[in-house]
Amino acid sequence: MAVELKELTKRSENYSQWYNDLVVKADLAEQSPVRGCMVIKPYGYAIWEKMQRQLDDMFKETGHVNAYFPLLIPKSYLSREAEHVEGFAKECAVVTHYRLKNAEDGSGVIVDPAAKLEEELIIRPTSETIIWSTYKNWINSYRDLPILCNQWANVMRWEMRTRLFLRTAEFLWQEGHTAHATREEAEAEAQKMLHVYGDFAEKYMAVPVIKGVKSANERFAGALDTYTIEGLMQDGKALQCGTSHFLGQNFAKAFNVQFVDKNNKLDYVWATSWGVSTRLMGALIMTHSDDNGLVLPPHLAPIQVVIVPIYKNDEMLKKIDAKVEGIVNKLKAMGISVKYDNADNKRPGFKFADYELKGVPVRLVMGGRDLENNTMEVMRRDTLEKETRSCDGIEEYVQQLLEDIQNNIYQKALNYRNEHIVKVDSYDDFKEQIEKGGFILAHWDGTPETEDRIKEETKATIRCLPFDADEESLTPGKCMVTGKPSARRVLFARAY
Amino acid sequence: MAVELKELTKRSENYSQWYNDLVVKADLAEQSPVRGCMVIKPYGYAIWEKMQRQLDDMFKETGHVNAYFPLLIPKSYLSREAEHVEGFAKECAVVTHYRLKNAEDGSGVIVDPAAKLEEELIIRPTSETIIWSTYKNWINSYRDLPILCNQWANVMRWEMRTRLFLRTAEFLWQEGHTAHATREEAEAEAQKMLHVYGDFAEKYMAVPVIKGVKSANERFAGALDTYTIEGLMQDGKALQCGTSHFLGQNFAKAFNVQFVDKNNKLDYVWATSWGVSTRLMGALIMTHSDDNGLVLPPHLAPIQVVIVPIYKNDEMLKKIDAKVEGIVNKLKAMGISVKYDNADNKRPGFKFADYELKGVPVRLVMGGRDLENNTMEVMRRDTLEKETRSCDGIEEYVQQLLEDIQNNIYQKALNYRNEHIVKVDSYDDFKEQIEKGGFILAHWDGTPETEDRIKEETKATIRCLPFDADEESLTPGKCMVTGKPSARRVLFARAY
Repeated sequence: MAVELKELTKRSENYSQWYNDLVVKADLAEQSPVRGCMVIKPYGYAIWEKMQRQLDDMFKETGHVNAYFPLLIPKSYLSREAEHVEGFAKECAVVTHYRLKNAEDGSGVIVDPAAKLEEELIIRPTSETIIWSTYKNWINSYRDLPILCNQWANVMRWEMRTRLFLRTAEFLWQEGHTAHATREEAEAEAQKMLHVYGDFAEKYMAVPVIKGVKSANERFAGALDTYTIEGLMQDGKALQCGTSHFLGQNFAKAFNVQFVDKNNKLDYVWATSWGVSTRLMGALIMTHSDDNGLVLPPHLAPIQVVIVPIYKNDEMLKKIDAKVEGIVNKLKAMGISVKYDNADNKRPGFKFADYELKGVPVRLVMGGRDLENNTMEVMRRDTLEKETRSCDGIEEYVQQLLEDIQNNIYQKALNYRNEHIVKVDSYDDFKEQIEKGGFILAHWDGTPETEDRIKEETKATIRCLPFDADEESLTPGKCMVTGKPSARRVLFARAY
Repeated sequence: MAVELKELTKRSENYSQWYNDLVVKADLAEQSPVRGCMVIKPYGYAIWEKMQRQLDDMFKETGHVNAYFPLLIPKSYLSREAEHVEGFAKECAVVTHYRLKNAEDGSGVIVDPAAKLEEELIIRPTSETIIWSTYKNWINSYRDLPILCNQWANVMRWEMRTRLFLRTAEFLWQEGHTAHATREEAEAEAQKMLHVYGDFAEKYMAVPVIKGVKSANERFAGALDTYTIEGLMQDGKALQCGTSHFLGQNFAKAFNVQFVDKNNKLDYVWATSWGVSTRLMGALIMTHSDDNGLVLPPHLAPIQVVIVPIYKNDEMLKKIDAKVEGIVNKLKAMGISVKYDNADNKRPGFKFADYELKGVPVRLVMGGRDLENNTMEVMRRDTLEKETRSCDGIEEYVQQLLEDIQNNIYQKALNYRNEHIVKVDSYDDFKEQIEKGGFILAHWDGTPETEDRIKEETKATIRCLPFDADEESLTPGKCMVTGKPSARRVLFARAY
């Protein structure tokens, strides 16, 4: 067994340490010398690229186009929208100067005090302000609408406590920013994109999510409504996987973006924004992986199939090489990403452990006896089950197996999630239940004060008011804390 | 004729203004409210995306992987490599604080003086320093080499005079950073990537380039050798389209990155870096476009074919719609990007002008008579030639036409470039010739002093020592300025 695996903390011992170990040992990411900023390593970035490509296709299929807006935002822009500045101004990287110069004592470089900016610039924590200041020039009439732009970009929020992928000062994301002539159209867009995110999470990441709307406390700063998809990690904590915001006319008013409608009347433009980030990497890892390492959904695995030869001498290796070549070519022709690892500087046992750690969904092994028998050993990473199969038709078998694995890990995560949603009616029960992890459906009086109190006393937050709810959950009741009337049950959890 | 076209300055009147007009009117990019930073609009970004996709494929085919390194670099890192800091420290955006707070007088937000960073952070002007500080942890032995990473990222250099795409404070680029066990391997890598850039420029952008090595003055700060591809714009000025650097062991020494070689000896790692940026958009525009607007190479055009109907009534439009549908489907099945524009809020004349301005390579028009005759009018954007053809087999014809256009605009640019390379033997002739634009091959004594003098007196720089040169150019001669010995002719031009 490879050293790397031995050193991976078990989930049952310390889930948090298991996650940290895994991200580093599976070569996904590491801390950088810049506090709170990460280096995304090639293997981690390859997964992110597959996510990007798929999401980008889905955005384009729904009529969106990509564009690029500046990294830096004038400080004054942030305060144009009153709630927005409260939410974001606190944690921004601020550019104050534009030049360095040599220190006179030869000790290196210093900031040139003569090169001070008249107005400080903020590294974008999100781009609503700079984009709406730009849209002002793009929009005159209803004919200019809708605008359906997306941007793939880096953003920065000066977080004090950071964890790789889950919360970093700099992260990568996409942010959609759309402009519409009517309230209805903007609301429909915000919901449509939430469903795109939901489909992506479930069909590609194999992460089941609960879709719903946020309470006022958890809303995006400047939004009228924030829609969310919420996943449940294996430690029972929720993770917000993506959000889509109906912004009303707030940013249009802040940046004075008006249009002439079909009746020749001036009105402010309606807006949405929506984003997912490298945080999805955290959701992917924590939903499926196990004590042996990553478990990747085949639809996003950079390497879907690895083939390892076991051989006693060069002659045998040559025979295996020749046999495997045809299988590799056929798998590639089927659109399957396959790696044949016949490198001679690592032993098979090391390779097995390494590819398990890296979550490659299917491993094929061919040894001397397999060569004689025209067979291979097939191992699936999700269950670690092995079987020996004939090489005839193995490509079709592997193709089907990849789909089986994709479905199986989704179903497994779905079962876990469904087993961890409970209804609770008293605050005492709630306090007891929340310690066990998972989602709780409970009644709440709808006030921010009660929500704050629950958060303070239990560290649980309202994840959302789920769109899909059974009849009982939608029946009015009494708040578990105050006893005041409650319109419906809402979804609580402790969250990342 | 559409208003937009009327307002496009002619190249012969004012080339610089023509470029500025075209970038804005063709919806490629615009200035942002942040000084020197641009907004890349959806149509411009779609071209950049096609460039990215193609380059990324070429990088991966040559064994490279993508990764992501932090946006911010500790100030002290910049001064680790002595030449590097001289080249880059002067023009950097400096982050000094990490928080804003509400102004006490309620006037907005101010920088929180309590949130001052201990060490200032620089927005990356290029990433050698942060990447080599990271590689230190990745490299122990020759088995860890080579590392062949690329990064797609935004970078920032505080330019005082900016022009859209050509020189902006923030720009998008890719930067490859590779680490090797031997000098030979690193040198080969630097040259290999230059050839990848050259192939991309010629086969996809249809921009002929001269490949060569830079003189010491024009070398990247910290490189032992800088290789370049140089294009010639229609105004006779050169544009550096991409560079690839052999960095020797400079950055490995600056960041103490050593490895154990096969003979168990410690040595510093050898490095390369190479990059192309959104500047390529400028090269693309200025090489091919004309007084009617953009001329895009079919291999990079977001829309390769546009189809416009001309109709008198709804009934006729329906018939044209039905006829065109089959053609659209067949073109799409052939992998051709096609747009059928039957929008009824713009007249055909407006559409024609707009798609000309946007450089769509092929336009197909179907009117009432075409419908009767089973024909379409085909216009190619590069020559503006029109012809009427039968609809039978028109898809194959268009496919071939796109290749013809790709070849034709390359050949046209190549002819222009070749007609604008002259040999000059006296400095007086040089001064006269440089006013006419184009490349000049002349003898130079090899000293930075002479190069500086030429630049000062004529604004011309040495673009490169071309790899491909005729025998006469490689024959030693006398420097046109000083009369001192010259090893070979070198390539001069005024440049962007």
